[in-house]
Amino acid sequence: MASIITLTTDFGLADEYVAVMKGVILARTPAARLVDISHQIRPQDVAQAAFTLAAAVPYFPEGSVHLAVVDPGVGSSRRIVALRAMNRFFVGPDNGIFSPFLVDDHFEACVVVDCPSFYCEPVSNTFHGRDIMAPVAAALARGIPLADIGPTVFKADLKKLVSSQLQIDPISGNITGAVVQIDQFGNLTTNIHQRDIARLTNQPDKIKLFIKTTTISGLADCYEDAEDRGLIALIGSRGFLEIAANRGNAAAMLAVAIHEPVQVVKRPG
Amino acid sequence: MASIITLTTDFGLADEYVAVMKGVILARTPAARLVDISHQIRPQDVAQAAFTLAAAVPYFPEGSVHLAVVDPGVGSSRRIVALRAMNRFFVGPDNGIFSPFLVDDHFEACVVVDCPSFYCEPVSNTFHGRDIMAPVAAALARGIPLADIGPTVFKADLKKLVSSQLQIDPISGNITGAVVQIDQFGNLTTNIHQRDIARLTNQPDKIKLFIKTTTISGLADCYEDAEDRGLIALIGSRGFLEIAANRGNAAAMLAVAIHEPVQVVKRPG
Amino acid sequence: MASIITLTTDFGLADEYVAVMKGVILARTPAARLVDISHQIRPQDVAQAAFTLAAAVPYFPEGSVHLAVVDPGVGSSRRIVALRAMNRFFVGPDNGIFSPFLVDDHFEACVVVDCPSFYCEPVSNTFHGRDIMAPVAAALARGIPLADIGPTVFKADLKKLVSSQLQIDPISGNITGAVVQIDQFGNLTTNIHQRDIARLTNQPDKIKLFIKTTTISGLADCYEDAEDRGLIALIGSRGFLEIAANRGNAAAMLAVAIHEPVQVVKRPG
Repeated sequence: MASIITLTTDFGLADEYVAVMKGVILARTPAARLVDISHQIRPQDVAQAAFTLAAAVPYFPEGSVHLAVVDPGVGSSRRIVALRAMNRFFVGPDNGIFSPFLVDDHFEACVVVDCPSFYCEPVSNTFHGRDIMAPVAAALARGIPLADIGPTVFKADLKKLVSSQLQIDPISGNITGAVVQIDQFGNLTTNIHQRDIARLTNQPDKIKLFIKTTTISGLADCYEDAEDRGLIALIGSRGFLEIAANRGNAAAMLAVAIHEPVQVVKRPG
Repeated sequence: MASIITLTTDFGLADEYVAVMKGVILARTPAARLVDISHQIRPQDVAQAAFTLAAAVPYFPEGSVHLAVVDPGVGSSRRIVALRAMNRFFVGPDNGIFSPFLVDDHFEACVVVDCPSFYCEPVSNTFHGRDIMAPVAAALARGIPLADIGPTVFKADLKKLVSSQLQIDPISGNITGAVVQIDQFGNLTTNIHQRDIARLTNQPDKIKLFIKTTTISGLADCYEDAEDRGLIALIGSRGFLEIAANRGNAAAMLAVAIHEPVQVVKRPG
Repeated sequence: MASIITLTTDFGLADEYVAVMKGVILARTPAARLVDISHQIRPQDVAQAAFTLAAAVPYFPEGSVHLAVVDPGVGSSRRIVALRAMNRFFVGPDNGIFSPFLVDDHFEACVVVDCPSFYCEPVSNTFHGRDIMAPVAAALARGIPLADIGPTVFKADLKKLVSSQLQIDPISGNITGAVVQIDQFGNLTTNIHQRDIARLTNQPDKIKLFIKTTTISGLADCYEDAEDRGLIALIGSRGFLEIAANRGNAAAMLAVAIHEPVQVVKRPG
């Protein structure tokens, strides 16, 4: 069975850019299975791409190749890397997009891409996704070893995004985070993980959440725990704290956007 | 040849939700062929999902598995079902989404999903598409029989959408229906089937259609039957009465939305 | 390995139209590999579809079948054609959508589609993509020869789009073109090819570009050659002159739309 190659970009679906990368891949590795993760990452939002990859990758089988092209520095001196983590492969710019996989638990090896014989010639200055990254993903999918892609780079030398927006008070355990993603339903996903909540309290009804001028008490189990259009906080399917409205749009009701601060405290008593 | 699995959701394409279901499927049934029907069903609009499935399913080969996740009641007590109809399989919530396939001509068998050994653990309260429905679709696609998915449920016990908006006058045959879908071109599809029109008259030029303050006389054969931007009524490719504008946008010209009433009468003489 | 079939339409992704064509194809040629090029061509914009195909097709392997359905004349007397060019196959309406492949270098053969035994019956008047073109693409993908699809038509008899917007002054070489595509990033692609620029001068720093009231001097190598949000002109990945803003949106900054005129001159000295 051929390897899966997933694609994550900020290219949108109106232009032919994504299809061109698929053509390049299938011309080199005809048996590759292609799966789109998202092509609607906000333009040049490397952090959103990293969040999306972190949420999707664990559900794909081991051996999958994850191609991620959110690459504002294309054509400049930023490096392109290929790495192995969680027994999966990753190809993309060294701009922090793979931050979630650079932790010790996950990271296995990384090389700087330097294998012109694989490239789509002539290499442009504006579309390395097509000319370099797609061919390298195709090579990995047909079993070319990382060592043939380029020289090893140490994990410490890879660019890592710093998530400065999450702060936990060392005494009270109270948490200050932020909204990091708003989905099709207006559900607000925060960067506050269920582990952070568990450290604060093991009594979900003791949680108090503040966003803008709104307060939500306790954690719900599912959307229907609230009355129609009622706001709830719950642990979403990505493992992070979410704010949602039952059959309604929480983002619209609260008029919030990405980066909106969220506080979580434990009620006394 | 592996089974086809189609996917229909209201998840949109910006988030990783659809890709996650595909990863879950391919990890379990690597040879499955995945085809998106739509991920832009209006949030929680079960009726639109049912309409879209009814229009698409007959064109897929027998044996295909149709996974449909428009599921506002996720995590509550609503059931998940797997059914066989038209010699195809369906997996989704028991909320009326499969109504078009519950008629006697099509329906064959149904079970309530109860097979934890297939699930993606731990099962969340907010994403049964990933944790339960995708694994069950993957199982059906590799030939697991319905009987292994859960206990039989009678057709009469399944939730069915009631389409209250279609009324036919028993004496005159005049029809009152509604716009049920507006496509990319602004074409308005109604819930009035060509069979209803045929019962009213077999002379298409005798038809008179009323929508808002506009009257359209007669049925056209194709879009170019009208002058540029001219409004026409015709039987669309789904078999239902449509209102369209040649090289124009009927929805914008008429300023109508879903649910707008439409009357069809037979001209005297 | 089965043939690739690409799909290019103006159907959008909300409705089931694209999926229906895929179902029709897979029911006839189960091993076909399906790749979407774009389904967000502006409604009935044949020129945009032609531009998108021209940019995408060369990256797909020889033998691929390219199905293109932007078809405002569906159901009227416009013909449906199947052609071979660049050692690839094309199926679509004879409305100019394949213009880029009708040049002597690329064109190989063409037939008018006339093979009812392949069609999806009954043939509608409004969706020939489903009823005629998808089945013919499926037939070509499984090796049916062009001669079995219909009678030969001469290249000179095929409809060709005229690109009237590109003018080159025979004496100065100065170029008047237009914006033909705006992508997700707000990058403006013009119809001015790098060959036209090369004919004007081989010194990229001597170029002066005018769009609305803005002047850009010289050609950049990559987006990061400009300061943040700075405007640049460069040869984009499609081989055409582009106007872009580093980490910004040139279309929004300049408030331009498709068809905006662009002048390119050589600075004296």
